[in-house]
Amino acid sequence: MKKKKVAVIGATGVAGQQFLASRPGHPFFEVAALAASERSAGKTYQEALTDASGAFRWYCQEPLDPAFAKMKVEDASKLDASKMDLVFTAVESDAAKELEPRYAKTTPVVSTASAFRYEDDVPIFIPGVNLDHDRLIPVQKKKRGWKGFVTPVPNCTTTGLAMTLKPLHEAFGVLQVIMTSMQACSGAGRSPGVIGLDIMDNVIPYIPKEEEKVEKETQKILGAIVGESIAPAPFPVSATCTRVPVLEAHTEAVYVSLKKHATVEEVKDALRRFGGDFVAMKFPSCPPRLIDVSEDPFRPQPRLDRDREGGMLTSVGRVRADHALPNGIKYMLVSHNTKMGAAKGGMLVAEYLARQGHI
Amino acid sequence: MKKKKVAVIGATGVAGQQFLASRPGHPFFEVAALAASERSAGKTYQEALTDASGAFRWYCQEPLDPAFAKMKVEDASKLDASKMDLVFTAVESDAAKELEPRYAKTTPVVSTASAFRYEDDVPIFIPGVNLDHDRLIPVQKKKRGWKGFVTPVPNCTTTGLAMTLKPLHEAFGVLQVIMTSMQACSGAGRSPGVIGLDIMDNVIPYIPKEEEKVEKETQKILGAIVGESIAPAPFPVSATCTRVPVLEAHTEAVYVSLKKHATVEEVKDALRRFGGDFVAMKFPSCPPRLIDVSEDPFRPQPRLDRDREGGMLTSVGRVRADHALPNGIKYMLVSHNTKMGAAKGGMLVAEYLARQGHI
Amino acid sequence: MKKKKVAVIGATGVAGQQFLASRPGHPFFEVAALAASERSAGKTYQEALTDASGAFRWYCQEPLDPAFAKMKVEDASKLDASKMDLVFTAVESDAAKELEPRYAKTTPVVSTASAFRYEDDVPIFIPGVNLDHDRLIPVQKKKRGWKGFVTPVPNCTTTGLAMTLKPLHEAFGVLQVIMTSMQACSGAGRSPGVIGLDIMDNVIPYIPKEEEKVEKETQKILGAIVGESIAPAPFPVSATCTRVPVLEAHTEAVYVSLKKHATVEEVKDALRRFGGDFVAMKFPSCPPRLIDVSEDPFRPQPRLDRDREGGMLTSVGRVRADHALPNGIKYMLVSHNTKMGAAKGGMLVAEYLARQGHI
Amino acid sequence: MKKKKVAVIGATGVAGQQFLASRPGHPFFEVAALAASERSAGKTYQEALTDASGAFRWYCQEPLDPAFAKMKVEDASKLDASKMDLVFTAVESDAAKELEPRYAKTTPVVSTASAFRYEDDVPIFIPGVNLDHDRLIPVQKKKRGWKGFVTPVPNCTTTGLAMTLKPLHEAFGVLQVIMTSMQACSGAGRSPGVIGLDIMDNVIPYIPKEEEKVEKETQKILGAIVGESIAPAPFPVSATCTRVPVLEAHTEAVYVSLKKHATVEEVKDALRRFGGDFVAMKFPSCPPRLIDVSEDPFRPQPRLDRDREGGMLTSVGRVRADHALPNGIKYMLVSHNTKMGAAKGGMLVAEYLARQGHI
Repeated sequence: MKKKKVAVIGATGVAGQQFLASRPGHPFFEVAALAASERSAGKTYQEALTDASGAFRWYCQEPLDPAFAKMKVEDASKLDASKMDLVFTAVESDAAKELEPRYAKTTPVVSTASAFRYEDDVPIFIPGVNLDHDRLIPVQKKKRGWKGFVTPVPNCTTTGLAMTLKPLHEAFGVLQVIMTSMQACSGAGRSPGVIGLDIMDNVIPYIPKEEEKVEKETQKILGAIVGESIAPAPFPVSATCTRVPVLEAHTEAVYVSLKKHATVEEVKDALRRFGGDFVAMKFPSCPPRLIDVSEDPFRPQPRLDRDREGGMLTSVGRVRADHALPNGIKYMLVSHNTKMGAAKGGMLVAEYLARQGHI
Repeated sequence: MKKKKVAVIGATGVAGQQFLASRPGHPFFEVAALAASERSAGKTYQEALTDASGAFRWYCQEPLDPAFAKMKVEDASKLDASKMDLVFTAVESDAAKELEPRYAKTTPVVSTASAFRYEDDVPIFIPGVNLDHDRLIPVQKKKRGWKGFVTPVPNCTTTGLAMTLKPLHEAFGVLQVIMTSMQACSGAGRSPGVIGLDIMDNVIPYIPKEEEKVEKETQKILGAIVGESIAPAPFPVSATCTRVPVLEAHTEAVYVSLKKHATVEEVKDALRRFGGDFVAMKFPSCPPRLIDVSEDPFRPQPRLDRDREGGMLTSVGRVRADHALPNGIKYMLVSHNTKMGAAKGGMLVAEYLARQGHI
Repeated sequence: MKKKKVAVIGATGVAGQQFLASRPGHPFFEVAALAASERSAGKTYQEALTDASGAFRWYCQEPLDPAFAKMKVEDASKLDASKMDLVFTAVESDAAKELEPRYAKTTPVVSTASAFRYEDDVPIFIPGVNLDHDRLIPVQKKKRGWKGFVTPVPNCTTTGLAMTLKPLHEAFGVLQVIMTSMQACSGAGRSPGVIGLDIMDNVIPYIPKEEEKVEKETQKILGAIVGESIAPAPFPVSATCTRVPVLEAHTEAVYVSLKKHATVEEVKDALRRFGGDFVAMKFPSCPPRLIDVSEDPFRPQPRLDRDREGGMLTSVGRVRADHALPNGIKYMLVSHNTKMGAAKGGMLVAEYLARQGHI
Repeated sequence: MKKKKVAVIGATGVAGQQFLASRPGHPFFEVAALAASERSAGKTYQEALTDASGAFRWYCQEPLDPAFAKMKVEDASKLDASKMDLVFTAVESDAAKELEPRYAKTTPVVSTASAFRYEDDVPIFIPGVNLDHDRLIPVQKKKRGWKGFVTPVPNCTTTGLAMTLKPLHEAFGVLQVIMTSMQACSGAGRSPGVIGLDIMDNVIPYIPKEEEKVEKETQKILGAIVGESIAPAPFPVSATCTRVPVLEAHTEAVYVSLKKHATVEEVKDALRRFGGDFVAMKFPSCPPRLIDVSEDPFRPQPRLDRDREGGMLTSVGRVRADHALPNGIKYMLVSHNTKMGAAKGGMLVAEYLARQGHI
């Protein structure tokens, strides 16, 4: 198979960097263009990442591929998307609102931004969870008159929650969901993100707009396609989203009321078996299993579990009965917010879409 | 009024130190004895706090009162409690199980330990919340043949939860409670407590026995006296207790289903008005109000709010409707675990018991 | 004495807030004007501190004085300084360069900014250390044709170093100084200051321009007035300035080569006795001693020692011989960078200048 | 080559775990025995790492090799070392003092403990720095009548310092060294190591015995063999060792006075070229270069640089002139204290000793 040409938009930002770091020598895709704001345009990628003080602003643990270092950065607002097979965007919502429709006229767009997530004809994909929502892609193309399309990944806090609710909803039915998150600082980015003076020795109890996103996106992702749009899953989701002094990975305490009674063991089984079919498709970025369930009562922990399977695993633990909710179950999860929850999750979506012929 | 003589047991530990630091020149009480384990016995308090390397192990922000520094530390197992009007114990549960009944034969004991919390004839006091449970004191004395009694304060995570549920239960009735805590490291003490390698850049999702304590104690504290014991409050409480990289103060995300619908404003009002009668009694350790409700969406924060009113205030914020539970309300709270939630809370209880003639 | 009217410039920033928080009901000074950038002008101080999300951006532990909350914030560029007896500026260096000369035409200015520190006719004051440099004030006024003057406090990292070197230089002579700092995040302010993703679980080995400032300012502060300017102290100072995950207070490891041999005890004595005359002047913001020397080998620690004496004490410990330098002595110090090292130190300077008749 | 049989003593501790994690499928060595204290003896390694609460105490990022999980743990005090080709010990100094001579009677011992470091006939090895000190091995054997020998690696804070001083001493001569460390918590281990309440938002200015170790070991490592022992390097070393809230990797600020003047560029060159011959020997655990010198003024940082080249690289930055010392040079370094500075460094030493025929 000839490799698909990919443009990475927002290449100098953290999520864009992680896209570049995540999969050198990808068997399906080849990075053919890097784009960012006008300020970086015309510089090499190496230059664009070096600031006035001489500091090199590459934030991934993996070293920067020298081939990318030499590439010229283009102005995102002038990129000719028609020469690309795929555009991967990792920009702020405002920029996404403007740029993504422009690219989508000719080319598929996989996005980490929230700009289009709540549109009727736009699926929000989580690998292995709702890729069948790709039936909306032709609807979107037709409705908007685009040759391409836009498919965002969800908010990083939604990913782990929806991933673990999916097998429970399938097996037992979900009636109510309550979730409290303890989110990592990386979720807020670096401009300026969470400042040290605010977060050290502290918990910040509020992340603007986050709870609404999680509640709405979870229902949409676990919803069913009815006609030409998605009927949200019928159960209410109530979230409290907080920030804690953790660098990477979101931790979530989840309480679920099930339709049908299930024992703790049945719940663990359902979580463990989940995603077997998807994993069997052996996509390059797919972990060997989607969900791990630990019997160690002190797990999952964000620092210890976030990088398992390259940050693509959802780690669950402390599955136990909840006595406040009818058929209640509670558990903890850890999900890597900037890997499975952002760039690398987007790449796995793209791999699926490519194999399905959408890209 | 002649001052009551108090012995502080576990005086070298963190909670014992905080008792000593909390109220120099107390108008009701005078510290007449300091006691600790055999190892410290016979030393001055200053010597007992100085370790082999020359380090001085006084952990309070307030400087050590020179009068205490010179006192001789007694062996807790040999203390003659009959010479005291009150014994304040701040020791591990195992030691409490042995020592407290011995002291209580002659003398009232206010305790931070869990040893007796779950006994039928033992009230667990939170200031302003359930001091009417003191009707159990004569029951306990009679039943056990003691001249004194034992009244523990609750687990530090219970305090803020029960404090805020009380006005809601009174005003609207509580049907279900779900609570996720983000607890400070000081709750685990120093022997060794939470080690740096475990907690930095991390969340620990499990604190052994903590959830059971919170669930059970909350029901007992908000229960009603029926005959000679307490009928637990009839609503289920489901807790997830986690540890975060915070030094002091527990943060809790609370979801409550109310019997009677209440608006967010009605809930805030109930919380704000709570405890007026108790505060009006003007006890030396009592804050000017028990609960503060903030309109700033970024509050409460443990680092910013823990020391308000000397660590005796329960700070509430983010009161909002919850759509997953019937008549659902959700909010965040911050409560200082080693001040209101331990030694200083115990002192306020003692002040009440003294005025009521129990001490 | 009629109170002097003070304008606080940069009142919404952290240092400006600390000036306001530091001394309610000051016996010499009365806050007559608050000024900030154009953006805040016209709002009450309360409003100016409340951002669009409803968050209240008051960063001091002390509550905001309600009298200040109601004051109208003025535009700093339009303030009529001639109505004031003193202007206290806490703004960025660029703004200081423009505003301070304007105010100084009519009015004394005490500044936390670096803009004028390196001018020949400008003394950099540390309380108790070099207030005799006030002999430069008439020189500065004459030379610049101002009725007022500008006197900055030093960089916050200089303060503790110069404070502890002064008694050593007086008693034994200093030949060489080497200093490595571990600085708190608050030194970088909040716009955005040090971001959480950079500093957690990390040390940042470089603070732009900091080392040069410390080296130059220390020599100037410990220099002698010769004619109409200051001859820098003749010993070289070599600094390495780093940032560590600490909220407040700078920690410094200092190595000094002395001219005259001194024992560890002699050095401790010199440090302990320092500043007696100044302290005896009993200024409202003056701590009861300037330097504390601990015998506990584990002190000073920034978290435990920063707030002693209201953040105005320089805590020294681990004084010991150094065998690499001739007559070498080494020690650690902790100094509160935003209290003695900024706003509160500036206020103590102003108290001195007022009593000397400069204000 | 037939693989050498290795016993790992202290296998359940952090350093022992890292030895096991560091090199699966090692071409020279095969782990033939795991030993620990009596408490663990008889259990499988998996069982020995699982505590009563069900928590699994494996602390490395790399997953535990299932082959090790099944091995039986032996009692270290009963191990028959004569069946082994090499014993790797990672135990406390007191245990080492007793166990290591027993093993060394028959078998070479590479140790992370300090017990024998200061004996005349014992070399302290750093890979690439002073492996020629192996000339002491036959001396030690003869003198003690052992068939084996003991060779410890240095204190983890010494490693980076001696590694970077070596090329400077060779090229320019070293006259004086001053070093301030900012050390990671992992250096203190886990029993209990540094507790969270002490280190968060703090610097601890003292690590018992650390400064003496660093000063003495550096001189010994950089000394020359004279007759049957090592003449310490003639330059004085003065250290201040502190603990900061960092998980892994020590950061050091170093000031060196050189015999011969050298420019900053010459110093960088000497550092960069260092170790070429050793690296060319291509040992399995050897990084592709020993020292990296960064031009980014914000590097090295412990979190960003510690894991480069598998934690075996010493990262240097901020090389600049120092004006306080004659021919002064100053720089910062980061060295991974539990990888190059402990178990993995010990393995690289063992690889060298094996090829030289000592093992």
